Amino acid sequence: MIDLFLIGIGTGNPEHLTLQAIRALNGADLVMIPRKGESKADLAELRRAICVEVLANPATRIAEFDLPVRDGSIGDYRDRVDDWHDAIAEVWGRTLHEGCGETGKVALLVWGDPSLYDSTLRIAERVGKGMPVRVHVIPGITSLQALTAAHAIPVNEIGAPFLVTTGRQLRDHGWPEGVDTLVVMLDGECSFRAVAPAGVSIWWGAYVGMKEEIIVSGALEVAGPQILTARAEARARHGWIMDIYILRRDAR
Amino acid sequence: MIDLFLIGIGTGNPEHLTLQAIRALNGADLVMIPRKGESKADLAELRRAICVEVLANPATRIAEFDLPVRDGSIGDYRDRVDDWHDAIAEVWGRTLHEGCGETGKVALLVWGDPSLYDSTLRIAERVGKGMPVRVHVIPGITSLQALTAAHAIPVNEIGAPFLVTTGRQLRDHGWPEGVDTLVVMLDGECSFRAVAPAGVSIWWGAYVGMKEEIIVSGALEVAGPQILTARAEARARHGWIMDIYILRRDAR
Repeated sequence: MIDLFLIGIGTGNPEHLTLQAIRALNGADLVMIPRKGESKADLAELRRAICVEVLANPATRIAEFDLPVRDGSIGDYRDRVDDWHDAIAEVWGRTLHEGCGETGKVALLVWGDPSLYDSTLRIAERVGKGMPVRVHVIPGITSLQALTAAHAIPVNEIGAPFLVTTGRQLRDHGWPEGVDTLVVMLDGECSFRAVAPAGVSIWWGAYVGMKEEIIVSGALEVAGPQILTARAEARARHGWIMDIYILRRDAR
Repeated sequence: MIDLFLIGIGTGNPEHLTLQAIRALNGADLVMIPRKGESKADLAELRRAICVEVLANPATRIAEFDLPVRDGSIGDYRDRVDDWHDAIAEVWGRTLHEGCGETGKVALLVWGDPSLYDSTLRIAERVGKGMPVRVHVIPGITSLQALTAAHAIPVNEIGAPFLVTTGRQLRDHGWPEGVDTLVVMLDGECSFRAVAPAGVSIWWGAYVGMKEEIIVSGALEVAGPQILTARAEARARHGWIMDIYILRRDAR
């Protein structure tokens, strides 16, 4: 039996690590680190740095593996994701079999938290179809929490709901009924431009929690254009960007 | 100037603490710990234990203070909450003035994360009206993350939105349009009973992240009654309960 620990590591601040994450990492026989070619956005460097910093167990081995590339020829989004997850599960299976055989504790460092817009749990399930695997999840700080911390704001109004959604959903379906606060993730296209800005405020951040962190907030009419500029500049400077934002209808 | 650090401590597992939280705690001149009379639900004991365990700075002082009681004679919910927050802000102001004077670093240990259904940020804002205060937020593991970790599930379907809401909202407004996943918090009344159970699954947990943790999941028709029983038993045994759950419409 393989015990697979999916360890949330937070959003790039090594101090986002919890004591539980550090303990799980040091209890592992094998730590698997994914690589995405030359892309800085794979954050392999950060994962290596975390291992160097907190790994005190000399018996823990590290195995890097190359992430498969998505097959762009598959037209349907869900099919493309399914196919990609299958391919990753195969690489995981091979890497952990080579590193551990049939039994042992294997750790994967997951950006943010394994529960939130992350495919690691779904891939682990596929690996579990090919060999006996028990999955353990260690929660980590999410980019939403890093965003609200940076702005020192609550995500919800008192007793009110909020919707966590994606840029694509916001573009395709607009602002949903019955909710005044939206958290928008996975948005490479500044989809807040699809929202009528009057009476809406935005709290935006990129690289939240990291030393590169930038934040902008204010009325969407004013802050929206500022964010477009700041985002384009930061992306050009760093070669990659990850951002997230909260939209809120002002109290009426 | 007072630097006020609102430190998320997670949900009762002392290992939910992040390295950032431990550093902020040790950087504080004063740690304020709230007490709610004899109630175990104030978790003052846990906060004291965290201080004993991770405080290595002999210069850090601890000040306990009694939380004011909500004024039940105020009819409107929002007014009642406003009044209560004012009263707490007054006690905070007094406690930190007595402990620090006009300047210093003051830490408050916040259950979960200060951004999520928590009043600490709103109270800090009120304190800031009476004296110069700079607020810093250190994110912590939320009960939602402890729940998904315990069940080893993602909170969202692939690319799909989810709504975070309260028991009261679910009872008063039912299941909102356009979203298949609900996270229900602040629910003392098992409000999932207001949902037609066919085609709905539930992942429930109480005391998530703590050693008392209990979880139940399954089709709402089957798991719902199990949860009612488990919840009543646990509440009687411990004298208090905090729970949270996810409801999801099964894929159609």
